[in-house]
Amino acid sequence: MAGGTRELTVDLGERSYPIYIGTGLISRTGQYFTEHGFPVKSPILLVTDNSVVDLYAEKVEESLARAGYKVTTAVVPSGETSKSLEMLDELVGAALEAGLDRKSTVIALGGGVVGDLAGFVAASYMRGVRFVQIPTTILAHDSSVGGKVAVNHRLAKNIIGAFHQPDFVLYDIDTLASLSMREVRAGLSEVIKHGLIWNKEFVAWCDTNSEKLLALDPEALGYALYEGCKVKSIVVSRDERENDLRAILNLGHTIGHALEAVAGYGELVHGEAIAIGMVGSARLAAKFGYSGDIAVETERLFRKFGLPVRIPASCPTDEIMNAMLHDKKFAEGNMVFIVPTAIGSVEIRNDVPTEWVTDIVDGLREGNEHP
Amino acid sequence: MAGGTRELTVDLGERSYPIYIGTGLISRTGQYFTEHGFPVKSPILLVTDNSVVDLYAEKVEESLARAGYKVTTAVVPSGETSKSLEMLDELVGAALEAGLDRKSTVIALGGGVVGDLAGFVAASYMRGVRFVQIPTTILAHDSSVGGKVAVNHRLAKNIIGAFHQPDFVLYDIDTLASLSMREVRAGLSEVIKHGLIWNKEFVAWCDTNSEKLLALDPEALGYALYEGCKVKSIVVSRDERENDLRAILNLGHTIGHALEAVAGYGELVHGEAIAIGMVGSARLAAKFGYSGDIAVETERLFRKFGLPVRIPASCPTDEIMNAMLHDKKFAEGNMVFIVPTAIGSVEIRNDVPTEWVTDIVDGLREGNEHP
Repeated sequence: MAGGTRELTVDLGERSYPIYIGTGLISRTGQYFTEHGFPVKSPILLVTDNSVVDLYAEKVEESLARAGYKVTTAVVPSGETSKSLEMLDELVGAALEAGLDRKSTVIALGGGVVGDLAGFVAASYMRGVRFVQIPTTILAHDSSVGGKVAVNHRLAKNIIGAFHQPDFVLYDIDTLASLSMREVRAGLSEVIKHGLIWNKEFVAWCDTNSEKLLALDPEALGYALYEGCKVKSIVVSRDERENDLRAILNLGHTIGHALEAVAGYGELVHGEAIAIGMVGSARLAAKFGYSGDIAVETERLFRKFGLPVRIPASCPTDEIMNAMLHDKKFAEGNMVFIVPTAIGSVEIRNDVPTEWVTDIVDGLREGNEHP
Repeated sequence: MAGGTRELTVDLGERSYPIYIGTGLISRTGQYFTEHGFPVKSPILLVTDNSVVDLYAEKVEESLARAGYKVTTAVVPSGETSKSLEMLDELVGAALEAGLDRKSTVIALGGGVVGDLAGFVAASYMRGVRFVQIPTTILAHDSSVGGKVAVNHRLAKNIIGAFHQPDFVLYDIDTLASLSMREVRAGLSEVIKHGLIWNKEFVAWCDTNSEKLLALDPEALGYALYEGCKVKSIVVSRDERENDLRAILNLGHTIGHALEAVAGYGELVHGEAIAIGMVGSARLAAKFGYSGDIAVETERLFRKFGLPVRIPASCPTDEIMNAMLHDKKFAEGNMVFIVPTAIGSVEIRNDVPTEWVTDIVDGLREGNEHP
């Protein structure tokens, strides 16, 4: 399409789909719909949140209208609480009132919350309609690949959901300009994660280009999102339903999720929590006999990107351990960790002694700079 | 397994599954779980309703316990109102509290409502866990094949759902003894439907064996359920996602659904409404130039089974027509009818003039016995 637009295919057989990464893309949303053969007769539901709607919804709506599509916009409150069955109910009501049929499309315009919620609407409305993602955060480069969509339950996050692949993803780098610096850093944490699990050259490239990335240089950012999506796409295409390999994407997430659960609201965002978790996993590698350099390098890299690498003093070790032992990912009661074996490769371990984990959590505590 | 147990495979590639039809099956539920390799470590959620729980739940629970499985039973109120997001929320809570993990199973013990609801729990809990159906109605022979699961929205039935195939179906004919005669007749209406769309020999067999079927003779009933499931299974395996062929299963449903929507609660049950609808479709066949004998035969057969073949006086034609025009199945605004071309075969028509339909609805009205 436009000069400089990168295209990546997520290879999932008949559910394969392209990700377009570039600038100025949302103003061409309608063209993409036309090129993908979406019928103009079937109405579209555009789902977005109240922090994004004023910035980008009009451009998307106008572009779709120019191409002949009828679009209805539904705005949900920003934040995790919108990932609820109540909101699903409301959006299905909006879809019905807008006349969406089985050939219709649900668009997610926003970050991970909007993607997860609108994705589950698309997965379940009439047992599944078309889905298009227009991510507006760096972090969403992760959630836009792989088709995992869900809402939360009072007792657990992401527990009600589906695997529902989008028809395509429109990644407009221009939309990232409205992110706060903290969101940029946290988003890059997931980008770097993809390097750490699969591609050491890309890790080295991120290291060299940290300044450009933090300054949102479009060319550097486009390349980094492309490479990040590519790693995730390779992993997902080999294990769509998360039976085995896909678990490696959880590098840093065992400790990270526990930190998110224990830390007070706003103290740690997802990308920050997993940065600390990745340092923890790298230290675990040393316990398994892999090089101690992995932890040193990992920590240096995250520091360079301005990301936290220590557990806040407000999170007690016993609460963190408790949260980990209740993580739903532990089928049949084993603690599972993704452990780096070198920069750019990992292995899945379910033989991690609890004492090692306690030890590492203690060592990562703020104030324990020299454990 | 037991002597006289019939087994049928629904052929859906890697999602293929068997249906076991016979007597005394629920007391062997645990053996079936073991033979299918379900892990004993992963807890089971048994979903049933308050009209079924006292009759059969204990047998299922005991059999599972004997085989080493841990099972928690959740009881929902009988009836369509249980197919709601609120009930999904409750059942997911029950699943979490019972400790269900990704290798766990949700069992539906009951009729179509329980199957649809528990099936959607299984489809969405942790993005999909195992699902086993133990139908206790004749009508459920239809819903237990094909994987269509859903809950209702205030504005539309079955609008929030998924395609989620069971791992196996345990059809215990003994459980049908608790059905009312009205439920038996209405269930047989769907069985006969499967003959009418695909298998004229089976229609003739039903005609000959009507007395045995209405008397719930186990051998006759087992055979009829097997043949009914087989037709549905052939159709579903050729079109799992309801893109084209699967529409033929809706014979009688265009008028039938409209009648259900317009008739007061309890006046017509599903099987009765589609019996009237099938007579309507057969009369439509004559308008397209097919033999008038189709309608005569169809009507005679349903009368023999004690099913209604006329629209109740309480349902005005204009309301029925209005309900049909708002049916969600009409993608892009065309009225779609399944029209018999002979007994045992049908075609999909989307070129039915509205006037023809009005004419047929008028002609099917009670009191219009000689149109």
